Amino acid sequence: MGLTLDGDVVRAGYEARERFYDSRGYGKVRNGDLDLAPVEAAHLLYRGDIESIDGMDFRAFLGSTAVSEVDFAVYKDLRDRGFYLTPAREGWVDDASGADFVVYPRGNGPWDTEVAYRVRVVGERDTAAAAALGDCVLAVVDEESEVTYLDTDRRDVEGTSDAVVPATEGELLGERVVCWEPPAELYEQAFYGQRLGDDGAVQLSLVEAAYLAQAGLLTVDGGADAVVERGREVEGDRFDRRLAVYTALRASGVAPKTGFKFGADFRTYADVESAANLGHSELLVRVLPADHRFEPRDLALDVRLAHGVRKTMVFALTTDGGDVDIEWIAVERLTP
Amino acid sequence: MGLTLDGDVVRAGYEARERFYDSRGYGKVRNGDLDLAPVEAAHLLYRGDIESIDGMDFRAFLGSTAVSEVDFAVYKDLRDRGFYLTPAREGWVDDASGADFVVYPRGNGPWDTEVAYRVRVVGERDTAAAAALGDCVLAVVDEESEVTYLDTDRRDVEGTSDAVVPATEGELLGERVVCWEPPAELYEQAFYGQRLGDDGAVQLSLVEAAYLAQAGLLTVDGGADAVVERGREVEGDRFDRRLAVYTALRASGVAPKTGFKFGADFRTYADVESAANLGHSELLVRVLPADHRFEPRDLALDVRLAHGVRKTMVFALTTDGGDVDIEWIAVERLTP
Repeated sequence: MGLTLDGDVVRAGYEARERFYDSRGYGKVRNGDLDLAPVEAAHLLYRGDIESIDGMDFRAFLGSTAVSEVDFAVYKDLRDRGFYLTPAREGWVDDASGADFVVYPRGNGPWDTEVAYRVRVVGERDTAAAAALGDCVLAVVDEESEVTYLDTDRRDVEGTSDAVVPATEGELLGERVVCWEPPAELYEQAFYGQRLGDDGAVQLSLVEAAYLAQAGLLTVDGGADAVVERGREVEGDRFDRRLAVYTALRASGVAPKTGFKFGADFRTYADVESAANLGHSELLVRVLPADHRFEPRDLALDVRLAHGVRKTMVFALTTDGGDVDIEWIAVERLTP
Repeated sequence: MGLTLDGDVVRAGYEARERFYDSRGYGKVRNGDLDLAPVEAAHLLYRGDIESIDGMDFRAFLGSTAVSEVDFAVYKDLRDRGFYLTPAREGWVDDASGADFVVYPRGNGPWDTEVAYRVRVVGERDTAAAAALGDCVLAVVDEESEVTYLDTDRRDVEGTSDAVVPATEGELLGERVVCWEPPAELYEQAFYGQRLGDDGAVQLSLVEAAYLAQAGLLTVDGGADAVVERGREVEGDRFDRRLAVYTALRASGVAPKTGFKFGADFRTYADVESAANLGHSELLVRVLPADHRFEPRDLALDVRLAHGVRKTMVFALTTDGGDVDIEWIAVERLTP
């Protein structure tokens, strides 16, 4: 069987089509013949199903510029897991954008229409644009060529934490606001702040205080502006991003509290009825500017931690400008 | 009882000494009278043990510049946990440097010599110099005034993973080196690299390959320099730091593998006998330049993750220059 590399395609013949496409889902049929992407051809070489391409054996072909070792690691791993998959090239799959491989459900192949995963390959040392995530599985190849799969998903955040709170007064002290005589609902039902002691005083974080002051529920010297100003002094631009996300979470009926112990901005409770009887917090939220690029290692760290504490990691991407628009992207570990 | 603020000391009298020092460990005795640090005086005000200082009640005193809210949060938390503690001021404790509070074992106080913890206070938004850690407990106060304790400890890394490996040949391919026909010991006993498939080929990460080439155990076109050069191309200066730490770990009898899935540089195995029968990896190692300053949130994230997977987080601080000197600082969560 004579296979030749023609640009970025390996041309195989009619016989190859029968052997590799019809029964095992390799390649793309063109005029009755079979075209293979180099990564597919490399896998056939690796398996010993073909012997050479233009005289190159597996070792020579993998060492050539035709094949990316990172793509090969992912292709092989998914094949090892029992999947058929097709390189996401224009004309090879229905929607090639934003993916490197289209993976079919086990038992299916390119002749079916169903898709299990759209996989994007990144090396450990590459970065991934946050805004481009949300409808693909990231396959991260680490320096030892192990593959970690991270499923990314755009999602809405929703809950029923919407207790009504009477307005109160607070005093700005350093990096927090103390309400010396707050209504009981503030902490007990709506879960704002922390008790300072046993005498009923509640301390609010700057982001909680800024939100409440902007909502007309907290009076403080200098108004909401004074709190926001203090927030910017100690956190810079990040404070505005965090306040926008905090506000959106509260508007969605979710009670955010600090995520510090988990290295995140917030942890969230979807259904708070009382601070004394809290459920498990469901999400860890990290606030990022919309143009953020992830280092895969940081992403792996966040997602691994969230998994370990039975929460879902959600990234809140905030755009600057008048109307703040927030995109929520959940990322979870996936075992295909 | 008349208490007055004199600079950064609250002067209390002989009676206060009996009541607050002798029986409860507050303050420092000076000429038979009692001096209190403002944070201690604030705690006595908070508890209602004293009513005012220069006419200021708790609310006014906490709002003044005399007391840091962050220090107060930690002081109160440790008192709530049943400890006596002394502000680490020159002349108040034996060694005041690098600490904010000296905490005595439960049941002990400033009249004893034993010390349980030397505590340094940081706010969530401060940074902490990595090189200054190693002999203190960091008490991090988050934006909601909750305190997280992180015990930091200088330590040696030791193990018995020292299998002898015959020299072999490799081929530099992109960001890895493939040994097509390695001795079995390479992977099986010494746990270098990963198998590429079933035919015995082993792929090494660039840091593994650079180490082996520098040790004279791996022949590759262009020698160790070519591997290091490739490493610098894809990782910059970080590659040299990681190689120095990898080399030090191997020299200590510990087998490092990638820590990518844990968001770290390496995970380490202290007692590898064979790759087929690996024990649990004990450490997660993050490589940092010696002048690194931690964001407490990043530190909390690393330490929390390590704890969740039953490993210890160790930071390897590398100094530049001819002789690379590495300091190992272990950080673990602490519940005082």
